[in-house]
This record gives sequence, C-alpha cells and structure tokens, in this order.
Amino acid sequence: MGQNVVQKIIDAHIVEGVPQAGTEVGITIDQTLTQDATGTMAYLQFEAMGFDRVQTEVSVSYVDHNTIQEGFENADDHAYLQSIAKKYGIYYSKPGNGICHQVHVERFGVPGKTLLGSDSHTPTGGGIGMIAIGAGGLDVAVAMGGGAFRLTYPRVVKVNLTGKLQPWVSAKDVILKVLEEVSTHGNVGTIIEYGGEGIANLSVPERATITNMGAETGATTSVFPSDEVTRLFLEAQERGSDWCEITADADAEYDRIIDLDLSTLEPMVACPHSPGNIKRVADIAGTPVDQVLVGSCTNGSLRDIYVTAEAVAGKHIAENISFGIAAGSKQVMEMTAKDGSLAKLIAGGGRVLETACGFCIGNSQAPRTDAVSFRTSNRNFYGRSGTNSADIYLVSPETAAAIALAGTVVDPREYFAQEEYPRFSLPEKFDIDDSMIVAPAEDGSSITVQRGPNIGNPPDKAPLDESLCGEATIVVGDKITTDHIMPAGSRLKYRSNIPKYSEFVFERNDPDFFKKCMKNKKAGVDNVIIAGDSYGQGSSREHAAICPMYLGVKLVVARSMERIHKANLINFGIVPAVFENPADYDTISQGNTLSVEHIRDAVESGSERVSMKVGDREIVLKLELTDMDRKLLRAGGKINAVREGILS
Amino acid sequence: MGQNVVQKIIDAHIVEGVPQAGTEVGITIDQTLTQDATGTMAYLQFEAMGFDRVQTEVSVSYVDHNTIQEGFENADDHAYLQSIAKKYGIYYSKPGNGICHQVHVERFGVPGKTLLGSDSHTPTGGGIGMIAIGAGGLDVAVAMGGGAFRLTYPRVVKVNLTGKLQPWVSAKDVILKVLEEVSTHGNVGTIIEYGGEGIANLSVPERATITNMGAETGATTSVFPSDEVTRLFLEAQERGSDWCEITADADAEYDRIIDLDLSTLEPMVACPHSPGNIKRVADIAGTPVDQVLVGSCTNGSLRDIYVTAEAVAGKHIAENISFGIAAGSKQVMEMTAKDGSLAKLIAGGGRVLETACGFCIGNSQAPRTDAVSFRTSNRNFYGRSGTNSADIYLVSPETAAAIALAGTVVDPREYFAQEEYPRFSLPEKFDIDDSMIVAPAEDGSSITVQRGPNIGNPPDKAPLDESLCGEATIVVGDKITTDHIMPAGSRLKYRSNIPKYSEFVFERNDPDFFKKCMKNKKAGVDNVIIAGDSYGQGSSREHAAICPMYLGVKLVVARSMERIHKANLINFGIVPAVFENPADYDTISQGNTLSVEHIRDAVESGSERVSMKVGDREIVLKLELTDMDRKLLRAGGKINAVREGILS
Repeated sequence: MGQNVVQKIIDAHIVEGVPQAGTEVGITIDQTLTQDATGTMAYLQFEAMGFDRVQTEVSVSYVDHNTIQEGFENADDHAYLQSIAKKYGIYYSKPGNGICHQVHVERFGVPGKTLLGSDSHTPTGGGIGMIAIGAGGLDVAVAMGGGAFRLTYPRVVKVNLTGKLQPWVSAKDVILKVLEEVSTHGNVGTIIEYGGEGIANLSVPERATITNMGAETGATTSVFPSDEVTRLFLEAQERGSDWCEITADADAEYDRIIDLDLSTLEPMVACPHSPGNIKRVADIAGTPVDQVLVGSCTNGSLRDIYVTAEAVAGKHIAENISFGIAAGSKQVMEMTAKDGSLAKLIAGGGRVLETACGFCIGNSQAPRTDAVSFRTSNRNFYGRSGTNSADIYLVSPETAAAIALAGTVVDPREYFAQEEYPRFSLPEKFDIDDSMIVAPAEDGSSITVQRGPNIGNPPDKAPLDESLCGEATIVVGDKITTDHIMPAGSRLKYRSNIPKYSEFVFERNDPDFFKKCMKNKKAGVDNVIIAGDSYGQGSSREHAAICPMYLGVKLVVARSMERIHKANLINFGIVPAVFENPADYDTISQGNTLSVEHIRDAVESGSERVSMKVGDREIVLKLELTDMDRKLLRAGGKINAVREGILS
Repeated sequence: MGQNVVQKIIDAHIVEGVPQAGTEVGITIDQTLTQDATGTMAYLQFEAMGFDRVQTEVSVSYVDHNTIQEGFENADDHAYLQSIAKKYGIYYSKPGNGICHQVHVERFGVPGKTLLGSDSHTPTGGGIGMIAIGAGGLDVAVAMGGGAFRLTYPRVVKVNLTGKLQPWVSAKDVILKVLEEVSTHGNVGTIIEYGGEGIANLSVPERATITNMGAETGATTSVFPSDEVTRLFLEAQERGSDWCEITADADAEYDRIIDLDLSTLEPMVACPHSPGNIKRVADIAGTPVDQVLVGSCTNGSLRDIYVTAEAVAGKHIAENISFGIAAGSKQVMEMTAKDGSLAKLIAGGGRVLETACGFCIGNSQAPRTDAVSFRTSNRNFYGRSGTNSADIYLVSPETAAAIALAGTVVDPREYFAQEEYPRFSLPEKFDIDDSMIVAPAEDGSSITVQRGPNIGNPPDKAPLDESLCGEATIVVGDKITTDHIMPAGSRLKYRSNIPKYSEFVFERNDPDFFKKCMKNKKAGVDNVIIAGDSYGQGSSREHAAICPMYLGVKLVVARSMERIHKANLINFGIVPAVFENPADYDTISQGNTLSVEHIRDAVESGSERVSMKVGDREIVLKLELTDMDRKLLRAGGKINAVREGILS
C-alpha cells in the first residue's frame, strides 16, 4: 500500500512504537526552534537536565516576541539566549532578524525533516514539506538533548486542492475556508496534508500561510508535499541542495478527503472571538473599522508585503484608520525596502513596525476601547489584542489593504474592481544576508552564560502525592486558551521569572486566583482547575502549566483538553483528566471541596478511571494517559524523569 | 542701538511689560504644539477653562510618545486627541507621522513667529528662526485660548560660529561642545542666539539639532537667524512663502559672546548620567558597548538617517550590538525608503523602529542590566532608558554608526579614516505628503469628543490655605529631574488619569511616597518636598506638578529650581520656595514636622521671604514670585484663575 507524505516523513523518524493511527510513537527530531518568550525556560530546563551540547542537526533560538523591551527584563532574556546559544551549539537569531517561523522557512527548513518548536505556529514549516510540530519548551529541551518526541501516530486528512485562486483571493482565504470546514476542535491527533493539482499554483510562502494557521484547527500539524515549487523556493534562497522530493504515492490512503476548488473561493474573515468563527467578508461589509494591521508569522512574507504595498500604492488610508505593517523577517524588510514596497506603504499612511510578533501577541498596537481591528494574523481570542473590549477580525492582506483604504469593511474584489491584481512572482534569488544570525562556537566550554536578574531557575516539583485533597479553586467555561491561563502582552516579560509571572495566572478570569492559590498552598490544600470544552487551546506556552504548578495546582479536570497543553501539564506533573460524563461539569462550583483518594495508585497502575469526591457526591474522571505519561506524572514531571533516567 | 534676533522677535510679540532683561513680559503666541503624553491634559484643561476654538494662527496636536500601545489607554488617548483637535480647530498629526519637533520644523514652523509647546524640546523650532519655548500643558492651553505667555525678558548669549565642521563631526558635536561651555545650570532666563559666518555652513535640520538639545542648558530657548539657508529649506518644503529674513543688526549687543571655531571641533560625548557630563569620544575609546540607537527629535532628520546609512552601507554591525534606528518623521521614513538608506541600514543589521520618540523616553528598547548604550538622543538621566543599571551616552549619528560597526567606542574619524565622508546635500524638493495630518473641521460644533475610560478630568484644587502645617514627606538631593518626580516609560500611559498616575510619584526615590502622601492627606497633614539644586530639570511634564498637587503637596523648598517646573508648580497652586541659606537644606530630614504660618499672607502681600518652622528651629525661605505668580497661587492655580477672570 502506498504512503502519504505524513507517513513517509514520520515513519522515517520512528524510534519507538509502531505506525498505527491512535497509538503513541517516539520520533527523532532533526531540527528545533525556540522563540524568546518560551525559549528562556526551555534553555533553563536544558541546563537543569545536564546536557552539554545540542544533539540535533540544527537548533535555532529566535528573538521575536519581546522586542519592545520595556524594562531590562527583555534585554536580559536576549543576553541570556545569545550566550547560551553560543555555548551549547545553537544558532541565535537576533532581535530585528524577524519572526521565527518566517525566518526558519527562509533559511533553515529542509523538506522531509522533523522540526519541533516551542511555539504553536511551528507547523508553518509544513509549507516547505517538513513535519513541524509545536510543543512545550521542555519537550523541545529534551529533543535538543537527543531525546525522542512522543506523539499519537496521526490520522491523516487530505485537503485536495484544485483550480487556481481568483484575483484578490489568497492563501489566507484558503485556510479560513479550511477552518470553516474542519472547525477549531475535534482535530486532535490529526495531521492535515495538502495535495491535488491546485498546490502547483501555491508558492512556499503561501503554503506556509496555510500550514501556519492550520494550528488553529487543533491538528498536530499540516504539511504540503515537497515538489518543484519547493525546489524553486529553496534555490532562490541559495539552498537548492537542501531539496528532495516528497510526494504522496498514487495509491496513498487518507482517513478523510476534503475537496476544495480554489477558483470558487471568496475573501473570508474570522470574526470575534475565534479563528473558527468564519464568514465571507462580503457578509459583514460596511462595518466601521478603527485599525488595520498587516504582518505576523501568518502573513508577513515578501509576497504579502508586496501585494499590500501595490494595493495601497498611490492612495491614502482613511482618516479613521491606524494602519500598521510588520514584515516577517529582515529579508522581507530589506527586499521591500529595495523594491519600493515599503516606500509605497509609508506614503500611503502605513506605520512601519519592527519585524517581530508585535501586535499579534498584544504587547503593542492595542486598539482603543471598543475598537474594531482587522488583522492578517492568526488568532483573535478575547483580550489577546491587549484591549478586552475590542473586536478582532482576521483576514488576508488583500482584504486588509482594501479596508484600510475604505475605512470600513469591504470585499477587496469590489474595492479594487477597476485595478489589475498585483500578482506576485517569486524572485529568482532572494537577498541573502545572515549577518543577524549568530553561529554557535565550535567549542563553547569557555563561554560564560549571561544571567541578569530576570533569569531564574525553573521551580522544583515533588513526585505525585498518594491522594489529592483540595478545592475547585477556579471553574472556567469552554474554549479557555493559554492566553486566558497565562496572559502575554505586558506580562510577557516575566517569562523567565516564574514566581513573578505566576501572579498573573487567570488574571482576566479571576484577579484573586493567585492569592487564593497561595493561601491554599500555604494551608496544604491542593488547587484544582475545572474547565469546559477545548481547555488550553491556542499558544503552546508551557508557562500555562509551569505557573499553575508553582501555585500548587495538582489536577485539571475538563470536558475536553487540547493536545499541547495536556502534554505540558503532564510534563510539569499536573494530572490532566476529563469528565466521563460531561454533564458533571455543571455540578461543580468554585470553592467546592474536592478529593481524589489514591490518585497516585490510579496513575501508576494504569487505571483509566478514578473517582473524585465533590462534597458528598462521586464523579468519575477519565485518565487518558500513555504509559510514559504515567511515569512522568509519578516522577513529578519530565525534568525529574530525565534526571532519574526514566526517559532513556 | 541695534537689535539681536531674540529681541526682534520677542519685542514684536510683547503685549505686557517692558523689554528689559530680568523683568517679566507677556507675549502673544502664534503657534502651539502638544504631544500626546502632555497633550491630553492640556486639552482637558482647555475644555475645563471653557474655550470654544483655538485663537492661535496654527495649533498642532502630535502623537509621538505613546505609540507602542500596550493596553487600551494609549489608543484611547489618541482617539480623544483626534476628535478634540477636529472640534476645536487644531491640526492632528496621527501616530506614524513622526516626532512633533521634526514634523513641526518640516511642515509648520515659520521664521519670526512664537511657538509654545508642551514639550521641553520645543526649542527645536529655533533652528528655523522661531522663538520656540517649552512650557507646561496648562500654559499651552491658555495660549491656545488666546492668552499671553509670561516669561522673563531674557539675557541673550551669542554663540559666534566660525569655520566649517570637519568630516565625521556634526551638529550634535556642536551642541555637546556648547553644553561643555555653558553647562546644564545657571542659564535660567537666558536665550542662546547663534550667529557668525559659520552658520552659513549649517542646514536647518543641523541647526534644529543644536537648538533642540539647547534645552539641556536650562536656557529659555535657542535660536538661529532666518537667512538664505532657511529660505532654501522652506522652499524645498514647498513653503517658500513662509520665509522672511531675520538677522541680528550689525551693532546688536549681547550679554555674553562665546566664540566657537567649527573646524576645531572633535566628536564629543555626554557621559552618564547628565547631558552636561561632556568628554571627547577619543577619551573613552575602547569602552565595550551593547546597544546603539539612532533617531529622536535631536537626530532623526533626513540628513542624520542618510549619513548613518551611508556610513553603515556594505558593512555589518558587531555581533554584540543591538542597533536601532527611528527616523524623525514620515517624510524622513518615506525619503530614506526611496533613496535606499533604509535598505542599507536593514542590510547592515539595523532594527527599524517606528518613527516616534520610542527609546528616548524609555518606553521601548530598554537595554539589559548593566548595559552600555550609545544614543543620538538628548537626555541620559539615570533610569530614563528604562534600565536603572544602564550607562547611557549621547553622541552624533556619525559616532553612533562607528560604534555599532566596531562594537566598542571608537572615534568615527579613526574608524572611517579610509572612507570619504558622506556629506549630505539638502534635496531641492522634499517629498511632501501631509495625508497623516488631519485638518480641523471648519465648524466643529457637531463633533463628539471621544472619551474612553482612560480619559479623566483634571483634579480640582482649593485656593491657598492661610497657613501650612505638615511634614517633610520626602527629602531629595541635587538635580532631581521631572523623570524622577513623575516617571515615564511604562507609567506614561496613565497621563490622562491623574489618580492612577499619582501612584508613581517619586517611585524610584521612595516607593512609599504615594502611600505616605495619601495618609497625610487623609489626616489633614500637608505634604512638603525638600530638594537640593536644580530641582525639576529635564522634561516639561506638568504632571510633575499635577500629581503632587493631587497628593496634597502644598510646598516645594529647594536650593534652586528650574524655570519650567517652577512655573508648573505655580500653575497648579503649589508654592515654590528656595532656601535663603542653602546650608539649611542639610538640616531637614524626612519626616520632620514643618509649618509656615500665614503663608497666604506672605504670598498675597508680596513678601519676598517667609519663615518656616522645622521642629523648634526657624528657617528663612525666599519667595521669588511675580505679581501674577502670587495671584495664581492665591487662586489655587491657573485653571481657577482663568475661571475667575483673573488672567484677562
């Protein structure tokens, strides 16, 4: 039987387990990436586990999240990251070099390789034919040390593309359409593979837009074949020798096939407050708008900035609009500076922002109270923009440009009806200048790691207690994201300082959560989080597990839980459980006394169920755990497990 | 007797008093400017005083300070400013259009006019032959309403320039040399007038660099004649009709003349932590550096960015350096994007930051702990960078470029010894595009002002009490800047919200100051600030008076006090006094009980002295107040005075 692209790449990397959908396998990791907001903790953990050099083919440490630098904390993080990269064999991409996913595709990604990144948009690498997976920093640290990465051998959904996109419709509209089709839940354990004759009409950066925002489906990752399009891109990056062909066999099988005719696609929009709340742009035409932002790891490529600039050229944005542009990388900045795109955007009224994550993570460009903001980024969760009352919509660069000029929502096909669509051609050669990427030292032993006062050590955790006796310290609803659990924005700078960062856990849901936890912790009462569906969706930040762990959270019970966050909870010794009967969720209130007798026995012995007492009632919890998960939980998390040799 | 430039302009604007050095005169104000950090309060005060339209020839509201937008507060301020400008007859320069001083010289400044701005670097306008003065927002609000501005008729110091600058030496080195000559104190009541044959070799943007940083001398302002150089600049800005000639008469007299031969000047540097701590760059050669930043209202002109780009072209910055560039205006951004300068800077490793104040006010690009940072901006006060432990040095763009490339301190003449100096020629025509400047409505009556939750009203103040009975709530040392009193950086976003912003008064000197004040205020105990020399230097922020006023501070006693801050204290009803015997300063400790009986009588009656009881001792305070100052203090500040008709 023939193989699909996913199977070909994963099977070539399996070191543990058998390739059968739904079972756990361990795969070797060829490449890793970190960004600064998750990276400091990943490298602190790398150090804590005692490794002395990365074992991967390529590991890169990017700085793209905290580049505003309000206070010494961010720059202390950068100095730590630069020095530790040099010491341990890691490439360091300086602030100003761009967003990790964009730069990685440009300069490091290799078809057929596995990439593990401590950022949930790591699947961007699928655009160049990698199996690229987002994970917590600790998993990335283990992979850097040579350890296998464990995942559920995936079901594979094929998105079969035919036809060609119409003018003013682009890759972003493809992934928004896919999100409409598969939604933001129910895709755990799945990988989305793109194929069909239509993919020949999509360049690598366009493919990367699609695989990037594939993260919002909850799938493990998304991937395109590596074909002629991939080869041309790599040659233009002067990396032709990194290319190899990887396509699905003619008789490859899939768990599901979704057919999508690109020529029928219209401009799409994700409405507040979910990337899965999809409409056609035309359906909301006329909505007044305050802010338009182009950029991010989803839509910051040369193509995206070029098309936006050509659309804006010779015109001016509306008086009521603030229009920000952040290119995805130094390469994009440099080339759009040279080709006149940047000048056109500035002339039209654009605010040129640094090439970084910036507005997408809410640490800048927060709009005014009650604002309506249209963005080309990938997430519009409540509050993520930095302004809780704002409505955030996600669109393509083409749609963003039309709205910036019109001042209200408009379908770009209508707004630009009299104009020729500025179709982008991939350059024969990109401008290559890797001077902002610092190579590691051949021998790092003499390099001193720079530890400013913002650099703390990861907190310790005791092994799992025999029984749990505590309180439902918080009860939250459905679709709680890691942004709810652990806010970014102005709090992001404390990422390397767990006691400080922990003060902000759930601050938007319950400003007193920190105090309640610390009080319980002091009194020996275990903290428990009760949640609805899709708990922990969104960003891969492992701080959403580390900080609750620091606060004495021992158990999270949800109706359903997202893959990366569940793995993070296990990595830090917090037991993840789901309600056997979802209706039990409604019977628990904040402050209820909870207990789980012999939880350690249940975890250790392989029990799939355990009973939780809520007052006088008994509720059954399901423990959906692999053998390795159970070992990690027993040990009190992965750092302890590595130290004890459990992983090897 | 002939007149100098200062006398010609001021005398043409006098509406009260006689032109005699040391006496107070009132002058009409032709133009005003505000920036967002001081502007919201200025316009709130403009509204509170009941004006219905600006009475000036031109008033402009710029947004350049809080353009990072971390949280809704900044964008709420912008929305308020945009709507109130449209309503009351004010031009509004949107975020992204650039730094107020740079844009004002480019698009609004007119030789021979008076400009009052709520920013201490308003003297930048002196580069185009204006009398341009920084003041508190309330004074600017009164001027917008048509009221006269009161100042001490100045002593005039002539800086007589001869010769021509050598390669790699530029305008910044001139003002650093002048600062070495006249220092940062002892210049209150002075205006510095530049003249001599050497000025023909300095373009308007170069002159603006010099007058901009003239603010650091403590002089009222600095001014260049309006000559052929000025005419060419205005014509290149398509504003030739705004030009008129204003030069000193041949027999003009000056209070002091300083001769400076430009051809002998070397690259200079202001060392930590004062713009007056001047050395030659060569004297500190070899110092390791972490960060280099080019831009700000001092050095963000087309010339500055062009020269930096040419110096960097084809090279790469050192591995240890983070190199940020912020152009001064949209015009500069657009032209450097078109002429290839921006591309050269990006290729060399530059981080392109938004055209805004940014790093200069410490709300971004804070360096790491213990960092050494070289900047082209104008202030290096302790902590202003956002990192208390950092050492900040101020240099020219030429020096900054050399250091960024070398990675350590180096004299640019030495570093670029083998290269031709990229001498800049003023373009025949600048690219003019005012689309980011929103014109006011002809009739603003129907316009609704947008007031988000961050927009509060200015606090009320009761008239002066008969006696003062209180405590030395804080005792601070010499050279306390308004940055010490009222921090900017991450606190800046609360500028429109006095109760919140007041929590941070003196936070670096005494984190408990706020609490102590509120406790005293509740208990009916007056708060008193005791200070050393040059109290209130630095930025013109009137919040350094408003917030102490809100906290119940009734009196500030210093060994000496800066002009703008003293005026701000009076404007908000806080009595400013100086020790008759400076040694008395040393006898007061924090927490001492203080009282001043019949302080109101002393203020009202014109007494130049008043006795303050410190425990059992009596200390004599000098009240250096004009008649108008006394009326304002009696009324409880200027807003009350305007409402009561005292000013008209």
